[in-house]
This record gives sequence, C-alpha cells and structure tokens, in this order.
Amino acid sequence: MNDKANSVGRRADYRHFLTIPTRWKDNDVYGHVNNVNYISFFDTVINRYLIDAGGFDLHQAPIIGIAVETFCRFRRSFAFPEDVEAALRTGHLGNSSVRYEVGLFGRGDDEARAEGHFVHVFVERATNQPVPIPAAIRAALEKLKR
Amino acid sequence: MNDKANSVGRRADYRHFLTIPTRWKDNDVYGHVNNVNYISFFDTVINRYLIDAGGFDLHQAPIIGIAVETFCRFRRSFAFPEDVEAALRTGHLGNSSVRYEVGLFGRGDDEARAEGHFVHVFVERATNQPVPIPAAIRAALEKLKR
Amino acid sequence: MNDKANSVGRRADYRHFLTIPTRWKDNDVYGHVNNVNYISFFDTVINRYLIDAGGFDLHQAPIIGIAVETFCRFRRSFAFPEDVEAALRTGHLGNSSVRYEVGLFGRGDDEARAEGHFVHVFVERATNQPVPIPAAIRAALEKLKR
Amino acid sequence: MNDKANSVGRRADYRHFLTIPTRWKDNDVYGHVNNVNYISFFDTVINRYLIDAGGFDLHQAPIIGIAVETFCRFRRSFAFPEDVEAALRTGHLGNSSVRYEVGLFGRGDDEARAEGHFVHVFVERATNQPVPIPAAIRAALEKLKR
Repeated sequence: MNDKANSVGRRADYRHFLTIPTRWKDNDVYGHVNNVNYISFFDTVINRYLIDAGGFDLHQAPIIGIAVETFCRFRRSFAFPEDVEAALRTGHLGNSSVRYEVGLFGRGDDEARAEGHFVHVFVERATNQPVPIPAAIRAALEKLKR
Repeated sequence: MNDKANSVGRRADYRHFLTIPTRWKDNDVYGHVNNVNYISFFDTVINRYLIDAGGFDLHQAPIIGIAVETFCRFRRSFAFPEDVEAALRTGHLGNSSVRYEVGLFGRGDDEARAEGHFVHVFVERATNQPVPIPAAIRAALEKLKR
Repeated sequence: MNDKANSVGRRADYRHFLTIPTRWKDNDVYGHVNNVNYISFFDTVINRYLIDAGGFDLHQAPIIGIAVETFCRFRRSFAFPEDVEAALRTGHLGNSSVRYEVGLFGRGDDEARAEGHFVHVFVERATNQPVPIPAAIRAALEKLKR
Repeated sequence: MNDKANSVGRRADYRHFLTIPTRWKDNDVYGHVNNVNYISFFDTVINRYLIDAGGFDLHQAPIIGIAVETFCRFRRSFAFPEDVEAALRTGHLGNSSVRYEVGLFGRGDDEARAEGHFVHVFVERATNQPVPIPAAIRAALEKLKR
C-alpha cells in the first residue's frame, strides 16, 4: 500500500492472512464496525505473526515492538457478524523499526475494504531504548516482503 | 450454571459453541484477558446465535434483545493469542425475557474457565416496551435448553 | 446493593464517586452504551480508588487484585456524550478478597441506572496465590463501608 | 500537523480541548494505553465537538460523518490513571469532507504526546452517498481553523 487514495490493494499483494471474527460490540451506532477496531485488527494480525512465526514471547521478551505510527484508509465497511480477513506484508524493514502494511478483506473479496500501515520500533522493555530487531523476528519479517 | 462457587461447568453441560479468537488489546496490564472482555464474549456468542439460528436482523428487526443482567465468575484466565470457546445454553425462558447460561472454555479444556449468565428482555425497538419473544427466536432458544 | 431486582440504589447508599465521560465507541448499534462497557466503568472506579486512596502501584505492586466475579443489573441506559457518575462502597471485606458494590448514576439522578458488584481476590503477582489484602488498601476499603 | 516526523505540536496550535480520563482496560500488557485507544480519543473529541458546537444529533441526523482515513504518530505514552487532553483543529475543509487535526497532551504538557489526523466524509445516512457538510456543522468547523 502506498497511501495513495487511488490504489486498491488485492489479496495477491499480501503474504500472510489471519481471520478475525467481529464481535457484537465492534459495531457502533451507525451499524458498522467502528473505525477504531480496524486498528485493533492491524495490531492483532501483526503481534500474532510475531508470536507464531517469530517466536515472540509477549510476557517475557526483553525486546518488544512499540507502535510509533498507524494509518488506515477506509473504503467499505464491515458489520458484525462478518469475519475480517487481515492481510499482512512487510514494507520498509530498518535496523530498529519495521513498517507493516495491512489490508482488511471481506470473505471472498479480492479488493481490500481498508488498508493502512503500522510502524513498530523495537525497544528494550526495561529502558524503552531502541535496539536492533531480534534475529528471529527479522527472519520472520523478511518472509513477508512483497 | 447455578451461580454457586462450587459448581464447575463442563462441555457436556452446554448445547452450542462458538470459537472467539482473542485480540492483542484484550490483554490488560497483568498479561491476561481483561475481565470486561469476557462479557463481550457472552454478548457475541448470544447475539450471533440469535442471528444465525433465530434469523435475527440486528439492523432492521422491530424487536430487539436488551441486556438487563450480566454475571460472570472467573476461575482461570485466558491470554492472547489463545482462542476462547464460548458455550451457550438456554436457562429460564420467559414470555419476554430469557436467561442465557454461558461458559468459556480453553481449547481442549473440559472445565470452564469462566461461567455466567446474561439476561435479555425483548423490547419493541421504537418504544422500548417489553414484548413477547418473537417465534423464530423462541424456537431457536428452545433448542438450547439443557 | 443486594442483587434483588426490587431494590434501587440511591446516591446516599454510596461512599465514593468518580465521573467517567462516555466515548463515541461506547455506544453500540442500538444507540446506547453497550452493556460490556458498564463493567469497564466498575473496573475503573475500583482500580482508580485503590491507586488514589490505597497507594496501589499497578506497575510494580507485588500484590494485585484479580477479578473473580462481576455482576450488573441494568435499569436505564446511558448514551454518548453523557457522563457516568460511578459510585462505590465496600461490601464484604474478607482476608484476601473484597466485594465492591457499584452504582452508575446519570448527572443529577438520585436513582442508579445500573448497579452491581465486583469481587477482587488479592494475589501475589509472581505466583498468583491468594494473600492477605495489603494494609494500606484495607484501610482505604474500610473507609467505604456502608 | 503536517505528518512530518520532525514537527511537534504544541497547545497553541490547537483551538479546542476535551479532557478524556483513561480507563483501567486502556492499558495493555506493556503497562501503557494501547495505541488503538488513541484513535478512540480522536473519534471522541471530534464527535463530541460536532454534537456540542454543531448541533449534531447522532441518533436522528439524516447526514452523518463517516471515517475515511485515520493517522496517528506516537511520541510518548499515556498510562491509566492519567487524563488525556485531546486537542482539535480543522485542517482542510472541503465540500463533503473535513480533515480534523488532533493532538493528545498530558496534563500541563506543552508538547503533544501523539498527533494525527482523521477525515470524515459526510453522507446521507439512508443512502451512504456523500453530500455537502450541513451548514451548522460547517460553521462550527470554521471556528477551529488554525
């Protein structure tokens, strides 16, 4: 995703998928999933991937990923009880930080209903100081490059 | 579930199951799913069942179920990225109201980690006045009696 | 609050108050604050009181309060952008556990719109084993007895 | 805010402020307010302003503001029980859409801990088609221009 309004992401643009069912309270007063929850879907597909593919231990790891930037563009809404298929790829992979690119798809849709990015900087949990991305996590992120 | 601290629900005590994956932000500062989210799991398995089995249309239905009472007892915690298996049965089924009984199970667990109840009163959306439970919903709820 | 449907709590029944403004996404598809959020208001008035009056340090304290039971009865709804006035008193105060009784009031209302209880058991953070309630917290809780 | 990493917003850059207390469950496993909730603070200061200053009726208004883009850059964290002071100004004000610029400040801080933008497009609730921003809302938004 290049943050340009005229681009529309497709499934083939992404490397990893996670199905996230909606919950009753995700819907807001307008009857659709509230925009805030989309960022939670981003957060969830990303951290789950770090855990499953990168061996990240959220309880004990001395180095953790902290959000420094989030962006989302909304094209079409979701509504409970739909499932969201969250799609992930790795954008810029720096020394301490990574830009994840995320698309949210409806079941069977080829075009993303929402797309955005999320930047993590990896820091030492104890000091909050940026450090290089741990090797196992970096290896997992390399696999999701476009 | 009889709200007694010494009873522990088992899978065989329930009639319907829905898997609800946890989300990153469900975990609170103590590293486990915050208690508030358990009630959202109740809300989700219940309303989803009304939609799927009772033909409930949350956007248009003239009669809706409003929460009047919730209760949860917590025995063992969940933590992201675990899945929650939400289990449902129908307790007291009145003219306008129903008491749902809900258990939350970990994958493969036979004993519930949390159990509780949730009472809906059905009201006319326009007036907020109690009305009889619609027939299609009542039929779906009858099927989940213990 | 005695969990009986015919009792209605009043302001004079409570000992401590905290104003909690609603947020846009608290409202659900029916246009009122979703029931799940009420339990978050309970959680918030309680933990805030432990911090402010009991000197509780959520980040470092070796002994923490874990939710073991929550109950809420809903009488009248709230809707964003209303403020919620959360009212607290101490119910049963045991060796390791405490039952908080909570009422939620609208601005200027004398009758609670919702009432319930919340039980904390205090445990050692490292082992999750129940321990006596720390003295400073116990002293703070004694002050809120009815 | 110009979305450039080297700019840091100050209070004087904003036109309207709303205090939003944090809630217990806003904190995530790392002990700070989860990034997702920042977008809820944006959503809340914006919609509350539309209601209070623009006369917007979220329940009945035939024209509503739908989120089409959100962005947030995080510099310093918040943690429960801190208050967030959400600051708002109007960026680009188009025919059907408006870009809100939002800063989140700690009590007494002059530099924003987080900043971002949020774009609403106004649509007819019944058809979801873009329409001109209603006059009362436009007048309220004009007042928050930088």
